[in-house]
Amino acid sequence: MIDATVPEAAVPPFVREEFASRLANTKARMAERGIEVLLVSDPCNIYYLTGYDAWSFYVPQVLVVALELDAPVWIGRTMDAPGARLTTYLPASHVHAYPDAYVQAADRHPAEHFVRVLREYGLDSKRIAAELVSYYLGATAYLALREQLGGREVLDGSLLVNWVRTVKSPAELALMREAAEIVQNAIRIGVEAIEPGVRECDAVARIYAAQIAGTPEAGGLYTSSPPFVVPGHRSSSPHLPWSDRRYRADEVVTLELVACRRRYHTPIGRSVYLGTPPRDLATVADATVEGLTAALDAIRPGMRCEDVQAVWHATAGRHGVAKEARCGYSIGIAYPPTFGELTCSLRPGDRTELRPGMTLHLIPAIYRPGGSVVITESFYVTETGAQPFCALERRLYSKR
Amino acid sequence: MIDATVPEAAVPPFVREEFASRLANTKARMAERGIEVLLVSDPCNIYYLTGYDAWSFYVPQVLVVALELDAPVWIGRTMDAPGARLTTYLPASHVHAYPDAYVQAADRHPAEHFVRVLREYGLDSKRIAAELVSYYLGATAYLALREQLGGREVLDGSLLVNWVRTVKSPAELALMREAAEIVQNAIRIGVEAIEPGVRECDAVARIYAAQIAGTPEAGGLYTSSPPFVVPGHRSSSPHLPWSDRRYRADEVVTLELVACRRRYHTPIGRSVYLGTPPRDLATVADATVEGLTAALDAIRPGMRCEDVQAVWHATAGRHGVAKEARCGYSIGIAYPPTFGELTCSLRPGDRTELRPGMTLHLIPAIYRPGGSVVITESFYVTETGAQPFCALERRLYSKR
Repeated sequence: MIDATVPEAAVPPFVREEFASRLANTKARMAERGIEVLLVSDPCNIYYLTGYDAWSFYVPQVLVVALELDAPVWIGRTMDAPGARLTTYLPASHVHAYPDAYVQAADRHPAEHFVRVLREYGLDSKRIAAELVSYYLGATAYLALREQLGGREVLDGSLLVNWVRTVKSPAELALMREAAEIVQNAIRIGVEAIEPGVRECDAVARIYAAQIAGTPEAGGLYTSSPPFVVPGHRSSSPHLPWSDRRYRADEVVTLELVACRRRYHTPIGRSVYLGTPPRDLATVADATVEGLTAALDAIRPGMRCEDVQAVWHATAGRHGVAKEARCGYSIGIAYPPTFGELTCSLRPGDRTELRPGMTLHLIPAIYRPGGSVVITESFYVTETGAQPFCALERRLYSKR
Repeated sequence: MIDATVPEAAVPPFVREEFASRLANTKARMAERGIEVLLVSDPCNIYYLTGYDAWSFYVPQVLVVALELDAPVWIGRTMDAPGARLTTYLPASHVHAYPDAYVQAADRHPAEHFVRVLREYGLDSKRIAAELVSYYLGATAYLALREQLGGREVLDGSLLVNWVRTVKSPAELALMREAAEIVQNAIRIGVEAIEPGVRECDAVARIYAAQIAGTPEAGGLYTSSPPFVVPGHRSSSPHLPWSDRRYRADEVVTLELVACRRRYHTPIGRSVYLGTPPRDLATVADATVEGLTAALDAIRPGMRCEDVQAVWHATAGRHGVAKEARCGYSIGIAYPPTFGELTCSLRPGDRTELRPGMTLHLIPAIYRPGGSVVITESFYVTETGAQPFCALERRLYSKR
């Protein structure tokens, strides 16, 4: 299914039939919601529907999906248009570019061109929706779009494609397994590199090298977020950067890493203690692992997201360990700033049913003032249960 | 000025007086524009005003700057609040968190909490502006904010802080010089690693390692964008990712790299040909370098951005080389997705005057179907001219 061996990386890693089925599923959901034209701006969704893969999302760009058009239409910046032709199956006539003078200009917005193209295809008076929660459709773009449409309301097509993406094909799962190989290796190298006296930046440099070089069979790509490698009391906050500081004996270091294979992301977290872990930290780690394992063992197709969280909560709770935040979320294709798919979450109130082929990150991380514990697993739902992507020992590591 | 030697990376790298002056300059511009309360969501601007540095911008967060408050107020997710206390000078009472149930939820938005906090400070009926062009204030956040404010209009405070940031202090320039050391080294290592038969991902892994390890004096951090290392005909589009493919003899590889020191970014571009460059490519390279050098030599304080572009255009044009896109832009603090400061651009119509302390990336890159040439310089404006940050030989490299 995956054509990973083609010499030209330009070719999208899926057969055309897979793209056709993604488009059909998207159109079906559009029709259900009364949307005739969807302006897709989330780069994950553009990649999913076309294979388009470029770091061009820092300027406005949209993929037009219309019920009445056979293929989507790409609209972006002139310098990025060759990439749309190189990395997608779109017909050349479906690639439209706007002039560079529209980039980051105070007095004009590319939405002018978006609507001009809609008009060319006779789509401007259809029921048009945009992804209002997309990171790359800002408030200005939304207001400009509405103005260009003569003040007509723009419907909310948020997360419509994201929900189509939740169930993965065998080809997608294969890529996530390749990413899992890479990220496991990055954890091993990180744990090896983190030693008292080593600068944080030097250890993280080795992690990056492992993420990007990948394996002999499958190279890595840039990930949606940097390695989160947080030592000591700074680990009370999960998203802080590393620094030039040197690791010290008797501190914990949390590693939340992710690797990317053809934009598919597989994350995993482990923690390492530089010395003999204190009793309280060891207890938190044991509770985390027991809860994590219990949750994974309990998963069956048809189970609801909130019930997975409940299993974790009940198991860890017996050790007095609890967390306020959700303990997991859907994963798959990602670009910055997050590898979350933005659909279902493992938390109270989320009644999404797990289905075979869904992929999630179970992250019952415990952030504490003295030092945190991050031990997580990514998994996919099978016909009978949950299959973790990685095979790393599930415990608090320690180095003496 | 810079306290880069403090053992705890948590301390912001600027003295308090520098933060005080940034805040005063921001308030002065707010007053000029009739804005009483500015909701800052661009992570670069939040960092600039407070030192807050975390990868938490994938969920809604704002910094409230009010004319009548001495210090800004941070509002973000519960798990990120400890980071706001660890990495800023903000009083603990100015750090507010919203519950995790508001994260990526379909039926509620953190804007509820933003407005609740405004009410606590008696600010909810002031003249409130938000950064409508910020990547991390989406259309949904804007609409939710307006709804929470009872339908009142939200003013546009876009780029107000970005413009305050354009002129750098000596402490800021010192950080950009440190980033320049790192990025120069990354170019050298990249050019060394790129050889026929080497997998692209393996060469890029070495570039990443150099970017992150930094120098013995100054470690690197994650950058706002990945290395753009694009070979052969794929280089016709500047933002394509690398792949598992192996470099071939007789192709050009363009490198547009950036390094980050305490969130300050210094980019530079060079290109390498694996063999003897064909005549047409060499001509483009010579024209680029001549235009680049002429533009740098011509720069004086008081010169307008469009006039810098005109010098480049006239010089390169004598060799029949031209480009449609802008040939430069302001740089400084960055988070993904761009190291552009989003203020002035070197292009026709931009009449911004260059002032001492301004920092820009002059990027007269020529993207061509057969293979591109990227040779660029970052520089700062001095009292008398332009000083490049890097000292790499300015030519098309070749390896035989």
